[in-house]
Amino acid sequence: MDHAGRRDRLKARAAEAGLDAVLVTNLLNVRYLTGFTGSNGALLVRTDGADLFGTDGRYTTQAGTQVPDVELLVDRGTVGALARAAAGTGRLGYESHEVTVDGLRALEQSLEGSSTELVSVRRAVEALRAVKDDDEVDALRRACTVADQALAELAAEGALRPGRTELAVGRDLDARMLALGAEAPSFETIVAAGANSAIPHHRPDGTELRGGDFLKLDFGATVDGYHSDMTRTLVLGHAADWQVEVYELVAASQAAGRAALGVGVEVTAVDAASRDVIVAAGHGEHFTHGLGHGVGLEIHEAPGISALGAGSLAAGMAVTVEPGVYLPGHGGVRIEDTLIVADGAADLLTLTSKELLVL
Amino acid sequence: MDHAGRRDRLKARAAEAGLDAVLVTNLLNVRYLTGFTGSNGALLVRTDGADLFGTDGRYTTQAGTQVPDVELLVDRGTVGALARAAAGTGRLGYESHEVTVDGLRALEQSLEGSSTELVSVRRAVEALRAVKDDDEVDALRRACTVADQALAELAAEGALRPGRTELAVGRDLDARMLALGAEAPSFETIVAAGANSAIPHHRPDGTELRGGDFLKLDFGATVDGYHSDMTRTLVLGHAADWQVEVYELVAASQAAGRAALGVGVEVTAVDAASRDVIVAAGHGEHFTHGLGHGVGLEIHEAPGISALGAGSLAAGMAVTVEPGVYLPGHGGVRIEDTLIVADGAADLLTLTSKELLVL
Repeated sequence: MDHAGRRDRLKARAAEAGLDAVLVTNLLNVRYLTGFTGSNGALLVRTDGADLFGTDGRYTTQAGTQVPDVELLVDRGTVGALARAAAGTGRLGYESHEVTVDGLRALEQSLEGSSTELVSVRRAVEALRAVKDDDEVDALRRACTVADQALAELAAEGALRPGRTELAVGRDLDARMLALGAEAPSFETIVAAGANSAIPHHRPDGTELRGGDFLKLDFGATVDGYHSDMTRTLVLGHAADWQVEVYELVAASQAAGRAALGVGVEVTAVDAASRDVIVAAGHGEHFTHGLGHGVGLEIHEAPGISALGAGSLAAGMAVTVEPGVYLPGHGGVRIEDTLIVADGAADLLTLTSKELLVL
Repeated sequence: MDHAGRRDRLKARAAEAGLDAVLVTNLLNVRYLTGFTGSNGALLVRTDGADLFGTDGRYTTQAGTQVPDVELLVDRGTVGALARAAAGTGRLGYESHEVTVDGLRALEQSLEGSSTELVSVRRAVEALRAVKDDDEVDALRRACTVADQALAELAAEGALRPGRTELAVGRDLDARMLALGAEAPSFETIVAAGANSAIPHHRPDGTELRGGDFLKLDFGATVDGYHSDMTRTLVLGHAADWQVEVYELVAASQAAGRAALGVGVEVTAVDAASRDVIVAAGHGEHFTHGLGHGVGLEIHEAPGISALGAGSLAAGMAVTVEPGVYLPGHGGVRIEDTLIVADGAADLLTLTSKELLVL
């Protein structure tokens, strides 16, 4: 991955904002800018000078391997040590959405006596991260493939059958994703059977799958740190008319949302394109969440796609489109894909069929 | 679990500190005080009045089930809404180690125009969490049992054999813990073979296990939110004299550390009791980390047990004792248990044998 290129883009942004350096302490932002995957690391990016990567003694070897191109500072008090190294820098950016109140006090103490001024850069690195480069799209694609394949294998083996519990199915999905090369599930796998499918974020429990019920599966795999996110809803046995009706409605809404993705399109317009389909069918009140979110090193990241969102889409953004209709006490349907925004049609990464699957 | 009792203990501490209420925003602290397991929740604890639990619309049902005994406030901007509900409170505690710089600014805006004064409570809830109640010890014991059993099964099945990779063994351990009822591994499982065992926090890779090599396994299971933590080092095939020597040294050090655990004992004294054994054998420089840490809803929590630690142990604290000797380029040994500090001998939760296992 082109970590140096990413740091250069951050430098350009920092210079535009009149900063001399940026102290990056969000661990995922550090990973994005350096490749470091340990649990303690921070990065000092200088707009006009050599960068400095800090970690502690546990990671000396790992830092040498993963971050060979940045000068290394090993110190138990990593952030404080980097701040002291930055003392004398004129205007030093820091991540005010990440640094705690206690953390800022410690930074100020580390800089005491120097003329350095601390300035918030807010989510500058997250803004860069929203647009994926080719290596990231490749990792996302592999993460989505693992999830696709795990579901296909379980369905083929008959693991999604009446009598099994949500928990057992969830564990199977997780184990299969690991066996297929995932580092971990992307988040706590959602398996929701019957009336539980009407709960948007149901936690799998001992509920048994039953014939004629909806089965909603929302899950993903993490590969090289990148997350996939997919929801499929299927029916066990025989689909009743009301189930087909709700399913087709959500599928149409989801297709409209996917079709609305495009470079320069406002996120609110994407949400509306999908939501209008459901509202027009009289189910607006049963679609109780936003349409989608960015996905990458975090399962939820910029951009948010909802009626309350702001901004527009850019080529290379990785986003989910996931409308749902939830009928409390009866059941619910959500259909979700992960896609890459492109000049033409978005690039679909989750390839599992969206035809109503009746198992 | 006795969440109301925990809130009462926090109220008593807050009252002692002259506070009228505490706004708890650390999600694990919220879970500890309420039982809520969702991804967004905050709690307003009033020293003299009714408490208020906040979450968003995704969790209305779950909050009703998990937190039936606290008044519920549902708001998309959860923390801000709780802060507004607290406006007029005299002195309002907040978690300055958890609230970000941006978060504090938002809190101040929510309280604007009221006379409420924000006061840091630091790690007040974490301090309570360091001493486990019976329900927590029970969860920790179950988590440790899952890890014990997973390792025993894999060893019995011959899964720890030359030719397999670290990654494959790690995935087996993770899958087995899930199958035995774990929600997740407690952390990224460490499997380190041969020279990799000299790296304290080695990430499993494609390295193959070989006869005559050390195999270091550091892993744990999460059960009901509580983590277990255990390290065992074994030898594949035949143990060389130097391996037996290093192993016996670390085992003696670990036994000394366990024996030193006791109510009122300074954490630095526990570290010293274990470390002195290794230093006396001339390997002090090869024991490069602290002796142990608290374990509970987090894999690392209070108290830290190291030469740089402060404070003393109390009955009911859950801690690890994990000395190691690492010989770069050759191999290393770490032996780690999870235990509960008690009036007499500490209660050992990880029951896997610490005899040198030659497989």
